[in-house]
Amino acid sequence: MNFCSNCGARVERCVPPGDSLPRFVCAVCGTIHYENPKIVVGCIPEWEDGILLCRRAIEPRHGLWTVPAGFMENGETTAQGAQRETLEEANARVEIVGLYALFNIPHINQVYMLFRARLLDLDFHAGAETLEARLFAESEIPWDTIAFATVRRTLQHYFSDRRTGEFHFHMGTIEPMAKSKAEG
Amino acid sequence: MNFCSNCGARVERCVPPGDSLPRFVCAVCGTIHYENPKIVVGCIPEWEDGILLCRRAIEPRHGLWTVPAGFMENGETTAQGAQRETLEEANARVEIVGLYALFNIPHINQVYMLFRARLLDLDFHAGAETLEARLFAESEIPWDTIAFATVRRTLQHYFSDRRTGEFHFHMGTIEPMAKSKAEG
Repeated sequence: MNFCSNCGARVERCVPPGDSLPRFVCAVCGTIHYENPKIVVGCIPEWEDGILLCRRAIEPRHGLWTVPAGFMENGETTAQGAQRETLEEANARVEIVGLYALFNIPHINQVYMLFRARLLDLDFHAGAETLEARLFAESEIPWDTIAFATVRRTLQHYFSDRRTGEFHFHMGTIEPMAKSKAEG
Repeated sequence: MNFCSNCGARVERCVPPGDSLPRFVCAVCGTIHYENPKIVVGCIPEWEDGILLCRRAIEPRHGLWTVPAGFMENGETTAQGAQRETLEEANARVEIVGLYALFNIPHINQVYMLFRARLLDLDFHAGAETLEARLFAESEIPWDTIAFATVRRTLQHYFSDRRTGEFHFHMGTIEPMAKSKAEG
């Protein structure tokens, strides 16, 4: 950030009075420009014993597999965002079952929220940001080419829970260099 | 948003190629300025049969009661944010028990995440943005002067769950004009 989005003057980096962290502040109009983590919403679309994965047509991780997920937009709920991303990436309609996993990724200022969801029909196909969308049984999951640590860990929990017959909410933190830990 | 925070030129509102929503876009340097929901993190600090509430010294809702909560910062986890807010608003140290409630507030682009937490000692006192911090038994909760719908609904769930002896994760959506519904 170089300029004030309100008045166009140059911003400075300083700790505002009464605050404890440095912010971008406009010396001309006084606006404080806070920066906050972004939410990534997505889901695990289920159909019988399979789940829907998408192969990414965009960077980062072009060509690797993920569940449908993307940045939550203003004006929607977390569940609506997960449904919208599933429609955009796989042209697939889902019913949300419930929140399944929440991962903090503090070094890139993201919070992932992944839901369990039921595919409503098999009339799906790759969207513009997807090379390929298909159902995978557990034995077919491409573990070596999963795009993101959040997705790999969520799928590990998912199949482990499924074997026990009971799904639990999972929460954790992804740290740089694959160091990671459970939390809360 | 009037100016590009990257190059200082005026921004325009338009739907970028390949996108489906209007964004603020800089015609000079091409930066697309996405706007996304913010996360509010907080907790219900428990001590024996009481919980800690704070009376707000700032707007909005000056003088009304809330649980410690505030905007999540970059570089922290949701649980760390809840602990930090509790320290800032009530000078209170807590151990996080688990995520208890998630509320979407799509009309103001916020997602609330409130944890259950254990107060570690009774050496708390009002922080700079708090008029008063004190423990309340259920019979003492000031229901008529609770600051936010999210907090009121979370506390209703909390005491209802406590009576059954089992705490469950709750998720819902707060709509304008106190219209609201459960979800997911």
